[in-house]
Amino acid sequence: MDRIKQIVPADRAAYKAAKERWDSIAKPLGSFGLLEEMIQRIAAVQGTPDVDISKRTAVIMCGDHGVVCEGVTQCGQEVTAQCAAAIAEGRSNINAVAAAYGIDVMAVDVGIAEDVECSSLIKRKVVRGTRNIAEGSAMTAAETEAAIVTGMDIAGELAGNGAKLIITGEMGIGNTTPTAALASVLLGLPPEKVTGRGAGLSSEGLQKKVSVVRRATEVNQPSPDRPLELLQKLGGAEIAAMTGLFLGGAYYHVPVIIDGVISAAAAAVACKIQPLCSEYMLASHCSCEPAGEGLLGYIGLRAPINAGLRLGEGTGGALLIPLLEGALSLYNNAHRFEDTAIERYVELK
Amino acid sequence: MDRIKQIVPADRAAYKAAKERWDSIAKPLGSFGLLEEMIQRIAAVQGTPDVDISKRTAVIMCGDHGVVCEGVTQCGQEVTAQCAAAIAEGRSNINAVAAAYGIDVMAVDVGIAEDVECSSLIKRKVVRGTRNIAEGSAMTAAETEAAIVTGMDIAGELAGNGAKLIITGEMGIGNTTPTAALASVLLGLPPEKVTGRGAGLSSEGLQKKVSVVRRATEVNQPSPDRPLELLQKLGGAEIAAMTGLFLGGAYYHVPVIIDGVISAAAAAVACKIQPLCSEYMLASHCSCEPAGEGLLGYIGLRAPINAGLRLGEGTGGALLIPLLEGALSLYNNAHRFEDTAIERYVELK
Repeated sequence: MDRIKQIVPADRAAYKAAKERWDSIAKPLGSFGLLEEMIQRIAAVQGTPDVDISKRTAVIMCGDHGVVCEGVTQCGQEVTAQCAAAIAEGRSNINAVAAAYGIDVMAVDVGIAEDVECSSLIKRKVVRGTRNIAEGSAMTAAETEAAIVTGMDIAGELAGNGAKLIITGEMGIGNTTPTAALASVLLGLPPEKVTGRGAGLSSEGLQKKVSVVRRATEVNQPSPDRPLELLQKLGGAEIAAMTGLFLGGAYYHVPVIIDGVISAAAAAVACKIQPLCSEYMLASHCSCEPAGEGLLGYIGLRAPINAGLRLGEGTGGALLIPLLEGALSLYNNAHRFEDTAIERYVELK
Repeated sequence: MDRIKQIVPADRAAYKAAKERWDSIAKPLGSFGLLEEMIQRIAAVQGTPDVDISKRTAVIMCGDHGVVCEGVTQCGQEVTAQCAAAIAEGRSNINAVAAAYGIDVMAVDVGIAEDVECSSLIKRKVVRGTRNIAEGSAMTAAETEAAIVTGMDIAGELAGNGAKLIITGEMGIGNTTPTAALASVLLGLPPEKVTGRGAGLSSEGLQKKVSVVRRATEVNQPSPDRPLELLQKLGGAEIAAMTGLFLGGAYYHVPVIIDGVISAAAAAVACKIQPLCSEYMLASHCSCEPAGEGLLGYIGLRAPINAGLRLGEGTGGALLIPLLEGALSLYNNAHRFEDTAIERYVELK
């Protein structure tokens, strides 16, 4: 946890140098929009305008949630283990999407209830499923910290192996419920404004979920100003491990891509723990869960994709990779004003 | 122009078969959002759930605009010819983006004011720059029809060569002014609601542009119910040629991707000429020009990318390609409920 205090701001000079390179390209200034800014942010994280996104890994954190016993999900807790194994073995949704973009995928058991027999699943279990947040704390302080440290360690291992981008993803049946509870506290919004249907709840199920989120915040009395305690009370192992990935990305200077609403909640908590860490994050898509946009706004980011995605497993985050590749191809290869007879555009007044 | 009457609805059975394939994948129903629907739309256009997007071409229609003499642009008309040659020779912005995604690029002179010495630029000039829309009709009826037919012919040539997707793009200094005029008439909105800064106008320049758009609509008195006349009065050669690409895509059963606001205006006119043609279109991004979202809504489409893009040349449309590839990889390769122990999700109530 000492690493968190050692996080420094991203490199503003590299950000500025990347902007200057964009402005030398023979096109209207700033006309590739948010994608220009994203390349500049990566430059700042990597400390050079020579941006490198050649090696990227999607890390899918997996964990279970005691709150499932409240009937807030459409399918049972055993699906977490099944899907975690499928991801680890390359058979799941993220693997199919990642294959299209040359993304490595790893699945990590940080909190699955059962022991999963799967040699390719990375075993870093800190808890056997969380406790029911509608009745008390999800985890102990030690479990929460262990999950965060796990995420930071994995970011460090990936950085050591040359990863240039980390995509966050999760698998955890029931995890939109703790996410809604976290969003409610962080954004200061009532449960009904931040709670959605998750993988596919009926309207009746949604009502029950809203009341469970309300009980969770009432029982636990969390403060938005004590983010570690907030994660402990309302979070989950895979959420805390994603918070660790964001903190680790900032410490090890690797940009970390936010996926959907669960990942955005983990990112928002990371920003509360260490505000500098937002400089190391990239938003990918705006989830159609109701808290999605609010959480990104809380972090201060806008997402370039808005396609009603709610699949999870890091699939939305993966979609950012080819957009960055297209932007980088333009950044590196497009003709410059100095190569053409075209006069430079001037700054907008 | 006879082909327009022969356009038929896209294949609903193929659309439904594609939806059934999506619903067999072990993930929450509909959770890949708009991208699922886009694969279904392509299936309907291609008449089979075995969607093929392997060969795709960006067609960049190029033309000049007499209205430039009103001072509505930051750079001069000669830039159209320079950029058209750069695109044809592979040196421009779209070429750099297209290279990242394996997209072929062709540039077509349908209305550049000067003769461009460039062997790789496709010469289909129907007019040497349009006339000033603030003083009268942009084109004659014959020029307008010739531009539309050119677009349809090119769609037919590409289809004959095995193209599976067409990306529309344009290059034409001044063309956000006729676009704003077209949007004003089609959407029934006053000029100040649909006119933007284009490549980079100052606030003073924007005010002048709004008044030019107002004069253009007052002088020409176009009706939204006579779309060919609307194109003739307020459009441009490259805009009409893009309208032809959309109509041709519908006739030859090739999906056509809308790029930014200019392409969306051409698409909206195509829908007014032949409403069935919207079934053959795909939206890519929502331009930050003020008419962008309204024109897509007019067609009945939503764009998955919202990144403040305003570069033109088909660059935003090109960005849709890798998103479709990721979606198609999921559609073709993901594990299905029948391969897993996971129970099917049920439809949302």
